[in-house]
Amino acid sequence: MEKLAVLVSGSGTNLQAILDAAAADPDFGAEVVVVISDRAEVRALERAESAGVPAVVVPWNRDRATHTGAICDVAQEYGATAMVLAGYMRVLHAEAIRRFPDRILNIHPALLPSFPGTHGVAEALEYGVKVSGVTVHFVDEHVDHGPIIAQRVVPVLSGDTEDDLHARIHEQEHVLFPEVVKAFAHGRLHVEGRRVEWREP
Amino acid sequence: MEKLAVLVSGSGTNLQAILDAAAADPDFGAEVVVVISDRAEVRALERAESAGVPAVVVPWNRDRATHTGAICDVAQEYGATAMVLAGYMRVLHAEAIRRFPDRILNIHPALLPSFPGTHGVAEALEYGVKVSGVTVHFVDEHVDHGPIIAQRVVPVLSGDTEDDLHARIHEQEHVLFPEVVKAFAHGRLHVEGRRVEWREP
Repeated sequence: MEKLAVLVSGSGTNLQAILDAAAADPDFGAEVVVVISDRAEVRALERAESAGVPAVVVPWNRDRATHTGAICDVAQEYGATAMVLAGYMRVLHAEAIRRFPDRILNIHPALLPSFPGTHGVAEALEYGVKVSGVTVHFVDEHVDHGPIIAQRVVPVLSGDTEDDLHARIHEQEHVLFPEVVKAFAHGRLHVEGRRVEWREP
Repeated sequence: MEKLAVLVSGSGTNLQAILDAAAADPDFGAEVVVVISDRAEVRALERAESAGVPAVVVPWNRDRATHTGAICDVAQEYGATAMVLAGYMRVLHAEAIRRFPDRILNIHPALLPSFPGTHGVAEALEYGVKVSGVTVHFVDEHVDHGPIIAQRVVPVLSGDTEDDLHARIHEQEHVLFPEVVKAFAHGRLHVEGRRVEWREP
């Protein structure tokens, strides 16, 4: 059983999708052992509590290495074997990758390598793309850059606001992220350089 | 009737798709009045000849402004009202945009802004994306950068070689490019900043 530390910063809808999948699917292969937030009083912490999962706030520390070390310490105290960034808005220090090599997943609301960073949805809209989407990838030392595990496409429609497009992207995130976490938990994801191969279950 | 100068550098399969659409669809609204190649003895020139369309070779000149001027001169001699870059491997000088403002279309074998430039297919594969595709856009002063008219998605499959992926992308190009040219010829494409709106026919 894969034991997940889920990192959050906000509403935690992707956390909820993973909690729901873990509860509903006896073959999911992963459980959330701790939720870690960089901010107190976010909805994601309530979701953890409702699911009976320990929630820990590790406030942002200006020193990235120290902050990352504190998060990894908490994750390992709870026995986590992998970390899942579910709308976590901070960039981890490379220390995290050393401690969880190829075991940190991130979800990004754009078709990487287009529109990395914190404003991917707004920037896609400003650029005028006709399709955007969702990317789940392994975390490496660079922002939104590690090997891509899966992508789903979302159309950009005429007249879309950022909220419209983000809502359409979130829908796909909530389907894709649990699928990827399950595949990861079952050992199906094989990283070869920058390419991630999905092996048969 | 929109009169097109189609610029080519190679096999001309996108040229063929446009010629075929113009021949098959009485409502296409555009005709190819001249094919311009920067290289002699390419298959695209034979395609022009077979379709009874004049073909002109304008060899690459190291001075981009001079080369671009020569191409625009040829296009206008043949009465072209718009230019279509169909696998044309040279970058035009901004002079072309002044002479054909919002009237130059380009097709690119990737989901821009990802993987611009001449090696878009290989670079997508090396990066490890799970989806790539095709972009048709208006040409501006920057390479593969102007307002995006349409995009189509193509999956990247396990074990794909560059040829495999390129073949799958070409299939979509040959469907998308004639569609866009027709919409352009019918005055349906409205550019507002970087966003291109498709108006009802």
